[in-house]
Amino acid sequence: MLRRYLSYGLVFGLAVICFGSMAAQIQREIILEKANASLRSSIETFKEFLSLPNDAHIPEDLDPNIEWLITAFEAIDFTTRRLPTEGIDLLLAERSFPDAEKTVLIYLQIDGQPVDPTKWQQNSPYEPQLKRKENGSWVNVPWERLDQQPLDPELRIFARSASDAKGPVVAFLTALQIASSEQWQPNFNLKIIMDCEEELGSPNLPAAVEMFRDQLAADMLIILDGPRHISNLPTLTFGARGIATMRLTTYGPRVPQHSGHYGNYAPNPALRLSQLLASMKDDDGRVIIPGFYQGINLDSATLKILAQVPDREEVILRDLGIAKPDGVAPSYQEAIQYPSLNIRGMSSAWVGTKVRTIIPEAAVANLDIRTVKETDPQRLVDLVIDHITRQGYHICDGEPTEEERQNHAKLLSLHYEISYGAFRTGFNESVSLWLDRALTRVFNVTPIKIRTSGGSIPIAPFVQTLDIPAVTVPIVNRDNNQHSPNENIRLGNYLEGICTYLAFLTEPVN
Amino acid sequence: MLRRYLSYGLVFGLAVICFGSMAAQIQREIILEKANASLRSSIETFKEFLSLPNDAHIPEDLDPNIEWLITAFEAIDFTTRRLPTEGIDLLLAERSFPDAEKTVLIYLQIDGQPVDPTKWQQNSPYEPQLKRKENGSWVNVPWERLDQQPLDPELRIFARSASDAKGPVVAFLTALQIASSEQWQPNFNLKIIMDCEEELGSPNLPAAVEMFRDQLAADMLIILDGPRHISNLPTLTFGARGIATMRLTTYGPRVPQHSGHYGNYAPNPALRLSQLLASMKDDDGRVIIPGFYQGINLDSATLKILAQVPDREEVILRDLGIAKPDGVAPSYQEAIQYPSLNIRGMSSAWVGTKVRTIIPEAAVANLDIRTVKETDPQRLVDLVIDHITRQGYHICDGEPTEEERQNHAKLLSLHYEISYGAFRTGFNESVSLWLDRALTRVFNVTPIKIRTSGGSIPIAPFVQTLDIPAVTVPIVNRDNNQHSPNENIRLGNYLEGICTYLAFLTEPVN
Repeated sequence: MLRRYLSYGLVFGLAVICFGSMAAQIQREIILEKANASLRSSIETFKEFLSLPNDAHIPEDLDPNIEWLITAFEAIDFTTRRLPTEGIDLLLAERSFPDAEKTVLIYLQIDGQPVDPTKWQQNSPYEPQLKRKENGSWVNVPWERLDQQPLDPELRIFARSASDAKGPVVAFLTALQIASSEQWQPNFNLKIIMDCEEELGSPNLPAAVEMFRDQLAADMLIILDGPRHISNLPTLTFGARGIATMRLTTYGPRVPQHSGHYGNYAPNPALRLSQLLASMKDDDGRVIIPGFYQGINLDSATLKILAQVPDREEVILRDLGIAKPDGVAPSYQEAIQYPSLNIRGMSSAWVGTKVRTIIPEAAVANLDIRTVKETDPQRLVDLVIDHITRQGYHICDGEPTEEERQNHAKLLSLHYEISYGAFRTGFNESVSLWLDRALTRVFNVTPIKIRTSGGSIPIAPFVQTLDIPAVTVPIVNRDNNQHSPNENIRLGNYLEGICTYLAFLTEPVN
Repeated sequence: MLRRYLSYGLVFGLAVICFGSMAAQIQREIILEKANASLRSSIETFKEFLSLPNDAHIPEDLDPNIEWLITAFEAIDFTTRRLPTEGIDLLLAERSFPDAEKTVLIYLQIDGQPVDPTKWQQNSPYEPQLKRKENGSWVNVPWERLDQQPLDPELRIFARSASDAKGPVVAFLTALQIASSEQWQPNFNLKIIMDCEEELGSPNLPAAVEMFRDQLAADMLIILDGPRHISNLPTLTFGARGIATMRLTTYGPRVPQHSGHYGNYAPNPALRLSQLLASMKDDDGRVIIPGFYQGINLDSATLKILAQVPDREEVILRDLGIAKPDGVAPSYQEAIQYPSLNIRGMSSAWVGTKVRTIIPEAAVANLDIRTVKETDPQRLVDLVIDHITRQGYHICDGEPTEEERQNHAKLLSLHYEISYGAFRTGFNESVSLWLDRALTRVFNVTPIKIRTSGGSIPIAPFVQTLDIPAVTVPIVNRDNNQHSPNENIRLGNYLEGICTYLAFLTEPVN
C-alpha cells in the first residue's frame, strides 16, 4: 500500500512527496503540475471522443473517430494522412522537430470491442459515466466532482474503450498539447500510427505496413496500449503474445430434434463438442495435445528476470475470484511465457427462458490461441486440427453435405485466422534503456519490467517489416473490464498516463 | 410407399379403397366422408386458434386461448369450468350421454413452446402459413388451394403448436362437432382436461389432479398428443418416458477476463463444463455414470413386442441426417426403453459477431433426463449430482460467495426440477383393446403399438392419483419440427386425425 500511495501521491499530493535527485526534480515537478492543470479539460476531450461508437464490425462508425483525430492532431501542428487499406483506413500523424536525429513511431488503437448494452450498468457504453465505489458497487458521480480538489484518484470513467484504448489516445494527445504549449521539444521526430481494426485482429495491417513502409520508417516503436502490472505501478512491457482464433462447429441431426423422441438415439452435438474440448486439456488446464508447448525453454537467467516482477499471486487470485490457477507453470509470469488455448465463447441451442427440450442441430465453440516468440501460430493451429482428426472427426468445408452426413458419424467444420505473431525486445536495447530512464526520472521508481504480456497487439508486422524494436508503455489499471461490459479507467491512471507520456517526450533519446 | 399411400388413400381417394369387413364399411365410409366435408371449415377454426400466442412463459397470453376453448366447447353442448391452480387455470369440459356407463377422460395440451421468430421462415409463428415442398424448400401456398379437389395431403400448415398440440385440439373439436351434428352418441361420458402449462413441465398439475380428483374421476385416460410412428401409420402408444431437467453452471473468474492476460492462469468455466459433461457419457453417447441404466431388463417377450414396430432405421437415420445413432441399445425402440441424459442447451460468453477474446465468468448447460417406468427420476438426478461431486466440484447454492471462491477450485451451481414420471399401460388392458378395435375398424390396419414413447407427457399424476390406465392416440406427422422453429402439421395427418378421433367416439367401450 505504501508504494501504491506513493504512486498516487506523485500527482495528487505534491506537497508530501520526497523527491530523489535534484537534477530531475524541477522537470518532474513541472510535469506533474502541468498534467494536473490539464486534467479537467482533458477529461472533457476524452468524454467527447468516448461518445463516438467505435466497433470495427460497423466500419462506417470509425470514420467520425478518424475525423475527430485529424482535427485534434492538426491543432497541435501534426500533419495527418489517411493510409487506405482493404478495410478501414489507418491514420498517420507526423511532426518533425529541429535537431532530431531519431524517429519514434507510436502505435495507438482507435477501435473498441463490440458492446452488449444490456450488460452495462449505464445507459449506453458510449455515454461515459463517472463513478465511485460505495459499499462494493459502482455508483454514478456528477462530473462536477472533478472540479473539487483534491481529486479522488479512485474515481473511474466507465465507457467502451475507456482503457482499451481511447484513454491512452486522449492522455497522449494531452501530453502532446502540454509539450507543445510549454515548448518542450523532443530530440526525436514523431510518427503516430492509428489502427482502427485492432479488435478485429488488424487483418489489413501487415499488408499496409508493407505498402507504407517508407512513410512508417522509424528507429523504434512505442505502443501505448494494454494495462500496467497488477500492482498498478509504472510498467514497461517488452513483448506480447501473438494470437490466432478458431471456430469449431459440431453437427448433430440436420434440424433440432425433440429430446424425448430421439434422446438415446440422435447424437448430441453439444456433447460431442464438450468431449472434443475436454480432450484438449487436462483437469489443471494444461494443453495435452502433444507438442503444444514445444520450444519453450525458460533458462535460469530468464526465470530470474520473471521472478523480479512483484506479483503477489494471492492478490491476483483474490482479484480474479479464484482459488487456484491453471497448472501450466508455477507462477503467473512463467505461465504467460507459454502459448495458451482458451474457449472464448460456446453455444448450442438456447439457455435461459428460451430453453427447450431438444437435441440441438449444432454446437459452436470459439477458441483463441495465444502464441509466444518461440511458437509459430500456424504450427499450433495445425496441432489442434490434427488432434481433432485423431478424435475421429471428418472435417467439413462449412455445413456438412448430405453425403457427409450419411458417411461420417462425427462431423465438424472449422475456421481459423492467424491475427498476429508474438514479439519480444531485449531489456538492454537502447529503446528499452531510454524508456526505463524516462519513467524512473518522473516516477522515482524503476518501472516493473514485463518480459512478455499475455495479451496480443498487432506489432509483429512493424517489428518484422520495419525491422525495429518495440516496447509497450502501458498506463491503464488492470481491473478495467477490458473486452467486457463496464469497461473503465481509473482517474489516477489517466493522470499518471499523461505524466508517463510526458516522461519520454522530455527524455532525450540517444 | 404402398402402405403410406393406403393411409392417405383412406381419406383422399375414397373411390380406390378396398375395404375389409362389410359390417364396419358403411360407418367407416361415412366417417371419412364427413371428415372430408368438414375439413375446410375446420382449418378456418384451426387458423383462428393458432393465431393466439400460447407461450406459457407469458401467462396472460393463455387466457384468450382458454376463452376461445370455452366458446368452442359450449357450442357443442359441453359444460366448461376453469380449475384454478397456482399457475395458469386448467380447463375442464364435460358432456354426459344417455346410457353411458363409463367415463373417458381426454387430455389436451393448449400451450406451446417459446418462439424465436427470427428463425422462422414466415412473418410470425402465430400467423399460420400453408406451404408445399418445391425442390426441397417449403414455399407458401394460398389458402384457397384448400378449396380445390382433390386435396393434396402433403400440404402443411406451419405455425407454433400446429402439431404440438393445437392440431389435435381442433381436429378433436371437429370430430366432436361431426358426432354431435350426426347424433353419433358415444356409449361413454366425456371429460376433457386442458393443460396450459405442458411445455413448462405442468408444474401445477399434480396438485390440481389431487385437488380436483372428484371432478376428474374417470375409467380411463386418452391422451391426444405426440406424433405417430415415423412410418406415419395409425399408432397407439401405451407409455411415455418421464422428464426431469437440470441446469448446471460452472464458474471461472468473478468477471470475464482478457484471455491474453489470463489465458494459462484463470481457469476457464467453459472448459470445466465441457470436461464435466464429457465425463458423463462415452463416445457412443452411453451414460457412464454408474447405476444410470440400472433396473431396465428387457426380457425376450418385451424384445419381441419392440421388434414388431416397423421401424426402418436406415430411413430414420437418413431423415435425421446422421450416419450412426448413439450406442445405448441396438435399435431405436430398445433405446427409448432406457432413461436418457441430453444436453438441450449450452452457453458461455458470446459467439458470432459478438465474440470477444475473454475467459468467460461462467458457463451454463441445460440438461434433460428422460426416465422410464423402472427409473425413479429423483434417483437419476441424485446419481448425476453425486457424479458431479465426485469430479471435485463444490456445489454452491446459486452464485458462489467470496468465501467459496477462495476455498474451492471447482465451483458449480445447479437447479433441477422433476416434471413428471413415466407411465406404461399393458397391451391387454380393456382401454388398449378398445382403441385397437376402433382404429383397426376405421383404418383397416392394425395400429402400430408403441410400448413407450420417447417424449414425455404429464400423465403420471392422472395415472397415479386417479388410478386409471392411460393410452396415447397420436395423429401428427413425426417430422413436424416440434419444439423447434418452423413447426408444422401435414394436412393428411390433420384429416386422418379427425377420422381417428371419430373412430373411438363411435366405438362402444366395454
